Amino acid sequence: MILCVGLNPAIDITYRVDRLAPGEAHRVLDVRRRAGGKAVNVARGVQALGVAVTTLLPLGGLEGADVEAELAAAGVPVAPVSVQGRTRHTVTVVDAGGEASAFNEPGAAVSEADWRSIRTSFAARCAGSAVVVLSGSTPPGVPVDGYAELTSIARAEGAQVIVDATGPALLHALDAGPALVKPNVAELAEVCPGLDTAAAVAALRARSPRTAVVLSLGAEGLLADTPDGVWRARPTRPLTGNPTGAGDAAVAALAVAHHLASPAGRLDWPVALRQAVGLSGSAVLQPVAGAVDLDVAHALAAQVDLRRLDLPR
Amino acid sequence: MILCVGLNPAIDITYRVDRLAPGEAHRVLDVRRRAGGKAVNVARGVQALGVAVTTLLPLGGLEGADVEAELAAAGVPVAPVSVQGRTRHTVTVVDAGGEASAFNEPGAAVSEADWRSIRTSFAARCAGSAVVVLSGSTPPGVPVDGYAELTSIARAEGAQVIVDATGPALLHALDAGPALVKPNVAELAEVCPGLDTAAAVAALRARSPRTAVVLSLGAEGLLADTPDGVWRARPTRPLTGNPTGAGDAAVAALAVAHHLASPAGRLDWPVALRQAVGLSGSAVLQPVAGAVDLDVAHALAAQVDLRRLDLPR
Repeated sequence: MILCVGLNPAIDITYRVDRLAPGEAHRVLDVRRRAGGKAVNVARGVQALGVAVTTLLPLGGLEGADVEAELAAAGVPVAPVSVQGRTRHTVTVVDAGGEASAFNEPGAAVSEADWRSIRTSFAARCAGSAVVVLSGSTPPGVPVDGYAELTSIARAEGAQVIVDATGPALLHALDAGPALVKPNVAELAEVCPGLDTAAAVAALRARSPRTAVVLSLGAEGLLADTPDGVWRARPTRPLTGNPTGAGDAAVAALAVAHHLASPAGRLDWPVALRQAVGLSGSAVLQPVAGAVDLDVAHALAAQVDLRRLDLPR
Repeated sequence: MILCVGLNPAIDITYRVDRLAPGEAHRVLDVRRRAGGKAVNVARGVQALGVAVTTLLPLGGLEGADVEAELAAAGVPVAPVSVQGRTRHTVTVVDAGGEASAFNEPGAAVSEADWRSIRTSFAARCAGSAVVVLSGSTPPGVPVDGYAELTSIARAEGAQVIVDATGPALLHALDAGPALVKPNVAELAEVCPGLDTAAAVAALRARSPRTAVVLSLGAEGLLADTPDGVWRARPTRPLTGNPTGAGDAAVAALAVAHHLASPAGRLDWPVALRQAVGLSGSAVLQPVAGAVDLDVAHALAAQVDLRRLDLPR
């Protein structure tokens, strides 16, 4: 079982307009709503790969009930944690040329009682989970070391932990020794200002030597600096499409690789990275953010240019 | 009793951002939600003036339940008509300089069965209402002569009808002989392209001689061309603030004036127009769209420059 945790789930709304003109009133031509957030995208990817998954989400208000109902209807198992605040929205405005402008609500503040409920539910779910994935932003009220705390709880229960977080939350999480973190280039630069990419990855590895750092490079694939070695996985042809959720698909494939290797087996990084780049590419080719296609993913995985690098240390 | 009807109610959401940059992701600094739409604004204005009001709104989905609960909590009586589609949102993004960009969802399509339910509920409510106000846009599925049909139903029940609509819906409604229509300058130009303001107002009056045309001129007040004469009502000092809902406040005051004059009395236009400009001005001075302040409204009404015009015909 893989447990996907999203502390700041959202209902993602997409508006289609002719042209975004600041200061004007716009007629919205088309409205799409989808229960979203990174943890939900990861869970959909894990499900596509055929591994049992549960999504732990703090949900509140009518919007929270809405997310729960939609995911249940889509067959994504949800373990809701009832919280006081209403589940947030994100609004993305897409113009006729495909340019997207996103407006991300911060999320309602999590109270101390909410945070206690989340930790209690999380600990109970960790016991039966080989892999735990912590994804995305945190709402106001979650302590900066909240992901670190969850990582420690999960590790104490014997689970391997994958963290897809940013900023101070990412650095604190590293101190708790997760199996893997997956920043992108901008997120890496944010936590290691002034360092080049190689030096920044090395700095994260030095902070937690047991943790694999898998850097997502957008259309250029992945760079994995792990306790077992360093690999570069690159798609052999460029893909055009919707990159939203592509990183989450990579995380889903890496979570499944960790799940298959657990508890004692050694992870086959070349296979894992091929699958991660393939599933990620299939997400780019899907019009709906966060959706994947397994047949496409397999075909893309077979075409990945995978190299082991011997980096100077 | 005044009945306010809004066929396309909404939950109005306001996002505060630093700067609106098309193509970028924005952190929303502050989120406000309010059950809205023009009919709700008119109802709040009527309530402030001390006249009993009911708001007839087609509502659907969790959002519809949310609107009903919020208005009930605010003491605005609602007669909901349950419809299949979910009640829409509008999103307004306001930057640090106060510039507002609005994104207005069209509203879920109204089915034929929904439209029958709306007409049935409407007819039942009209029987006890001296004045009926029809406000705002119509969702897909409402026929272009939908407002005209509701106007005829209301008149048959003995109610006076005020219509605040645009485009073809406004022209069709005129054919059904409402007591008053209230376009603004842009809406007047849309239905009478190529005519100057005086000629356009005259064209509407010619289309339905029993109907008063009250043209809202923004900061310049109102021009009323009525079966009883023509008046110009102008604020004596400029107001700065939030003009959203100011037109609805004017409609509320005009609805109350018709209510007080019904069934047999003659409407005192100078008094009605003073109050309309005063209440409208108080809405401009309130930070929350659609809110009014009665003390301020009375003070402003006393300062209105009101003149009877003898227009050449």
